[in-house]
Amino acid sequence: MELPLQHYLEDLHARLSTMTDGAVASYIPELALANPDHFGICIVATDGYAYAVGDSDVPFTIQSISKAFVYATALADRGRPAVLAKVGVEPSGDAFNSISLDPKTGAPVNPMINAGAIATTGMVAGEDAPNQWARIHASLSAFAGRSLSVDEAVYQSESDTGFRNRAIAWLLRNFDISDGDPMPSLENYFRQCSLEVSCRDLAFMAATLANGGVHPSTGERVASPEEVEALLSVMATCGMYDYAGSWLFEVGMPAKSGVGGGIIAVLPGRFGIAVFSPRLDGIGNSVRGIEVCKQISRDFGLHVFGPGQSSSMVLNRVYSGADVPARRGRSSTQRAVLETHIGRIRYLELQGDVAVDGADFVGRRIADLTAEADIFILDFHRVTALKNSAARVLAKVGDALRAQGGLLLMSRLRGRKALEAVLAEHCASIPRFDDNEIAMEWCEEKVLEKAGLSPANAATADATAFSLFSGLDAGSLLKLGGILQELKAAPGDVLIRAGEQSNDRVFLILRGDATVRLPLFEGGEQRVAKLSAGAVFGETALLGIPARTASVRAETELACLCFAAADFDRLTADYPQIKITVLNNLATELASKLSQSNQLIRALAG
Amino acid sequence: MELPLQHYLEDLHARLSTMTDGAVASYIPELALANPDHFGICIVATDGYAYAVGDSDVPFTIQSISKAFVYATALADRGRPAVLAKVGVEPSGDAFNSISLDPKTGAPVNPMINAGAIATTGMVAGEDAPNQWARIHASLSAFAGRSLSVDEAVYQSESDTGFRNRAIAWLLRNFDISDGDPMPSLENYFRQCSLEVSCRDLAFMAATLANGGVHPSTGERVASPEEVEALLSVMATCGMYDYAGSWLFEVGMPAKSGVGGGIIAVLPGRFGIAVFSPRLDGIGNSVRGIEVCKQISRDFGLHVFGPGQSSSMVLNRVYSGADVPARRGRSSTQRAVLETHIGRIRYLELQGDVAVDGADFVGRRIADLTAEADIFILDFHRVTALKNSAARVLAKVGDALRAQGGLLLMSRLRGRKALEAVLAEHCASIPRFDDNEIAMEWCEEKVLEKAGLSPANAATADATAFSLFSGLDAGSLLKLGGILQELKAAPGDVLIRAGEQSNDRVFLILRGDATVRLPLFEGGEQRVAKLSAGAVFGETALLGIPARTASVRAETELACLCFAAADFDRLTADYPQIKITVLNNLATELASKLSQSNQLIRALAG
Repeated sequence: MELPLQHYLEDLHARLSTMTDGAVASYIPELALANPDHFGICIVATDGYAYAVGDSDVPFTIQSISKAFVYATALADRGRPAVLAKVGVEPSGDAFNSISLDPKTGAPVNPMINAGAIATTGMVAGEDAPNQWARIHASLSAFAGRSLSVDEAVYQSESDTGFRNRAIAWLLRNFDISDGDPMPSLENYFRQCSLEVSCRDLAFMAATLANGGVHPSTGERVASPEEVEALLSVMATCGMYDYAGSWLFEVGMPAKSGVGGGIIAVLPGRFGIAVFSPRLDGIGNSVRGIEVCKQISRDFGLHVFGPGQSSSMVLNRVYSGADVPARRGRSSTQRAVLETHIGRIRYLELQGDVAVDGADFVGRRIADLTAEADIFILDFHRVTALKNSAARVLAKVGDALRAQGGLLLMSRLRGRKALEAVLAEHCASIPRFDDNEIAMEWCEEKVLEKAGLSPANAATADATAFSLFSGLDAGSLLKLGGILQELKAAPGDVLIRAGEQSNDRVFLILRGDATVRLPLFEGGEQRVAKLSAGAVFGETALLGIPARTASVRAETELACLCFAAADFDRLTADYPQIKITVLNNLATELASKLSQSNQLIRALAG
Repeated sequence: MELPLQHYLEDLHARLSTMTDGAVASYIPELALANPDHFGICIVATDGYAYAVGDSDVPFTIQSISKAFVYATALADRGRPAVLAKVGVEPSGDAFNSISLDPKTGAPVNPMINAGAIATTGMVAGEDAPNQWARIHASLSAFAGRSLSVDEAVYQSESDTGFRNRAIAWLLRNFDISDGDPMPSLENYFRQCSLEVSCRDLAFMAATLANGGVHPSTGERVASPEEVEALLSVMATCGMYDYAGSWLFEVGMPAKSGVGGGIIAVLPGRFGIAVFSPRLDGIGNSVRGIEVCKQISRDFGLHVFGPGQSSSMVLNRVYSGADVPARRGRSSTQRAVLETHIGRIRYLELQGDVAVDGADFVGRRIADLTAEADIFILDFHRVTALKNSAARVLAKVGDALRAQGGLLLMSRLRGRKALEAVLAEHCASIPRFDDNEIAMEWCEEKVLEKAGLSPANAATADATAFSLFSGLDAGSLLKLGGILQELKAAPGDVLIRAGEQSNDRVFLILRGDATVRLPLFEGGEQRVAKLSAGAVFGETALLGIPARTASVRAETELACLCFAAADFDRLTADYPQIKITVLNNLATELASKLSQSNQLIRALAG
C-alpha cells in the first residue's frame, strides 16, 4: 500500500527539483566540486520508520551540522555549568564565520558560530586530541546509528585553507577559553566537519534528538533528555546562522544547517527531518532545504508553537463505582451496606502523557467531586508516561484528600514497570493496584470494615440461602439434599479448569473465597471475579453446555456443596417443577449478569 | 481541598520573597517610585482556572510586555508580509533600547526592541493616531478580558523623558519605515507602555496565547492561531532582550518582560504564567521573575523542547470485528458468510489530538495489517482534535486502501461537529458513521452483498426456526401454536417500551427489522442492537421479570409471532417438559450473550 507521506515527499521533491537558485559553497575548494543538482529528502519517525526520496543515500560532508552533536557531547562530558562558562547561548545575529566573542570575557556567544564550535570541540572528554577525536567520532556515529568516516580530501582542503579558523583558535587561547596548543584540537574540528553522511544518516541523527536522545533503530541512548533539551534550545535560537529568527518564525522547528548542503530539523516526539541540496543562499543555508522545511511545516502543521494539546485531554472519563461493582458474591447485609457507599467511589481514567498541567486538571476535578464522592481511583491503563512533576502533584492531591477523610488509589499498573518506578518514588503513600477489580474489592472491604462488617462476620451460607434454590419448598429441598455432596478445598485447589469437558458439577460456596480466572490469548490468566459464601459457580452445566470457559480456584480454605448435572436431571425427571424453578432462577441470574455486563460495556465505551 | 499548585506557588513565593537583588527601573522618574517589595505570581490554566499568590492584584504599568500584544494586533490588521517588510524577526543580541536597524533597509531587526515596537505601533489599523489608539486599547483589553486604563502619571513621565525614543521614531521616518508625522504614533507607544495591569491580568493575557488566541474566560477569540504562533516564535528568540538565548535554554518558554517588573511566559496548550516584582537585573528583567520561571519550569518539566509525546499514542488499540459483531439476529446462512469475513475487519481506536505524525503512524499500521484484514474502521470517540493535515493523510490512506480493494471507514462521530467539519472538508470520500454498531452493520451488509446474499433474500423465518423452540417435538409445537398470535407493525411502531410493567409478551420476528434502544441518563436513546427475521425479543417475560429495561421499535414493516408469558405458564402447567426445554433454550441463549458481552468487555478494557 502506498503511504501518504511517501507520496507527499515524492511530489514535493519533484516540484522543488526545478529550483536552481543559489550556488554551491566555494570557500573551501573541495566543496566547490559538489554536484549542485543533488537533492534528497528523508523523514524518520520516532519509531524508526524512514521515508526517503531522491539522493537520500549520496554521501556529503556534514560541516556545521556537526556543531550541534558535538555540543551535546560536550554537555554530556563536562556538564552544563562548565560548558556555559566557556561558550554562551545567545543568538549573535551575525554570520556563521563571525568571530562574535563576548567583549568582557572573550567567550564565544554561542556554540553554533565557528568560534563557539571550535571551543566546544576542545571541551569533549579525552586526555589529548587523538582521544578527543575518538570520542567525537564514536558519539556522532552513535547518533547516526552507524560508523561514520572522514572525507579525507575535504578534511585536507579545510585544514589547508582554514586561516580564519586558526585565527579564531588563537584568539580563544588568548582569552583562556582553551588551553595548551589549540592547533591539534582545531584539526579535530576540521575532521568533524569533514565526516561523511547521507541525508538518511542526518534524518536518523535528527530523529535521535526527536526521540529524546535514543536512536530509534539501534535503541542506544546517545544523549540524555536534558542534553537534548538544551541542544534544541540552542538550535532554535542559533541554528540557522543569521536566519535563525526568521526560521523559527516561518518553520518553527529547532534546526541546523551546514555548507555541505545539509539541513536537519527536529520535531520533538514526532520526526527527524533532513534535506540535502548543495545550492546555498547568501547566508549559507541550502535554498531547497529551507523551502522543503517551510512547506513540510506548513502542510503538516508542525510549528512547535502551533496550537497545543489541551490539559483536559489526560482525563478520559469519570465514572461511578456503582457502574462497576467488584464481581464478588456478597451476603444481603453486605450488599445493603455497599450499595449505599459504592456511589461515593469515582474512577478517573487517565490517558496519554501526563504532565503537570494534566495532573493539576485531575486534581481540580477531584476537588470539585469531593461534594459527591470520597474515594477516587486513578486508572493508569492508558497512561503512556507520567512526569515526575505530575506524580508529585498527584501525591499532594492524595495527601489533601486523606486530610479530609477521603482516599486516592492508583490502579491498573500490572506490568507497567516504568510507571511503577515513578509512582514508587513520588507517590509512595498512595495505595497502588494491579487492576480495578482488586482495587475495587479493597475499597469494598474498607467500606465493610468501617460499617463493622468484617468479611469474616458474614462468611457462612447454608443450602437454603442460595438464589439457585429460591422458591423451592421444603420437600423439594429435601429431595435435592439427596444429590448434594460436601466438598472441602485448600488454597490453590482448582475446582473447574477452563477447557475441560467432563466435569458437570455445580458448586455452592458455604465458606471461604474462590476466584474465577480466564485464560488469556497471550498466555497466563486474568482474574475476572471473586466468589464468597452464598455464591454459585459451574451452574451452566445444568444447561447441558459441556465445555468450561473459565477456571475456578480456591483462594482460602473452601467449603462447598456440589452436585452433578446428570444427577439433577435424573432426579428432576420425576419432579419437573424442581427443574423449572431452578432453570428459572438460573436464567434470572444470567439475565441480571447480562444486564450488569451491558451496563459495564456502556461505562467502558462511554 | 487545598490544590497542590496553590500550595507550591505559596511556598515558592515565600522562599523567593527573601531575594532582594536588583533595583527598580529608574530611567523614567515615575517608575522609580515603584515599591520594590511587591511580588505576585499568577498562573492561569487554559480552562481559565487562576492560581494567584502575593501581590497579584496590585496595578503596575505593562511597559515592554505590550510590545508582544501590539505585534499580534499589527499582524492581524496588516498581515504577515506587510509587517515583515517593515520589521524583521531576527534576535539582535543587543539591549532593549539599542537602535538595531538593518544597515541596508533601516528596518528594525525585531519587534521586541524599542525601534521595532515603535514601528509596529504605527502599523495597527486606524486612519489616524487616535483611531489607532482605540484599536490598541481595545485589543490589549480583549487579551486581558477587561478594559484596561492608562496610568496618566507614568504616561506623562514617559512622554516627557522619551528623547531616545523620539530619535528612534525620526530615524524610522528617515528610512521610510513610517510615514507622516511620527510623533502622534510615538505618543500611542508611550500610552501602550503605560497601560495599567495586574499580575493576574498578565497571566490571563498569557493564557489567551497559551489557549491559541481565545481568552479562557470570556471565550473571545482575540488572535488567530497563526498570529499566536508567529508571536510566540518572536517571543522565543527576542522576548527577553539580550537574555533571550539563555532564557530559552534555561526556562524553555516564549516570554516577554517589561521594566515595570512584569514577566509573562506562555506554555502552549497548558498555562499562561505571570510574575510581578519590580527589582530588575542589569538587562532589565525582573530578578525574582526570572527565578520564579526557572524554578517552575524545572519543577514542572515545562521546557518546550522537553521530551515530546510519542506519535504512537494516537492509536489506543486495534481489535477485530470478530470481537464486536453487530448485535443483530442473522439467518444461519448469513452467519456462516459473516463469520468468515468478520475477522477481516479491524477497529482502530484513535485518541487525543491527531496531528500528521499520528495519522502517519495509523496509516503505516493499516499498511501492516492489510495482510490480515481489508476493512478498517477508525473509531473517533476519543479524538479531541484532528488537524487538517492529519485528515488529508487519512484521506490518502483511504484512497490507497480502496485502490487495492480495501475500505476505510470512520465511526463514532455522533455530535462531533468540529470533527465532522474537518472530515467533511478533507475526507469527503470516506464513509462516516455515528456509531460502531451502524458502521459494523454497514460492513456486514457489504459483505453479504458481495456474497450474493442481499438481506432481502434471507428475510423470512418460520416458527420452527426459532432457537427458543429448539428441541421441541411436533406435538409440543402444535400445543404452542394455540397461544401464538400473528402481529404486524409499521415502521416506528414501538412494541416494547422501556419501563413498562404490564406487557408480558414475547416476540418472534418472521420478517422485517426492529431495533433495541436503551434510554440514556442524559435523555434520548442509544440504539444497542438490530433484530431481523429469526430473532426473539422480550423473552425475559418468561422469567417473571416484570419491568422492561429497553425499548424495541419496528424499523420496517414487521411481521411477528407473539405470545403472553401468562398464557405460556398456563399451558405448561400441564406440559412441564415444554417449559423445561424453553427455559433451557432461553438460559443457553442468555449464557451465550453473557459470554459475548464478557468478550466485548475484555476487548474494550484491553
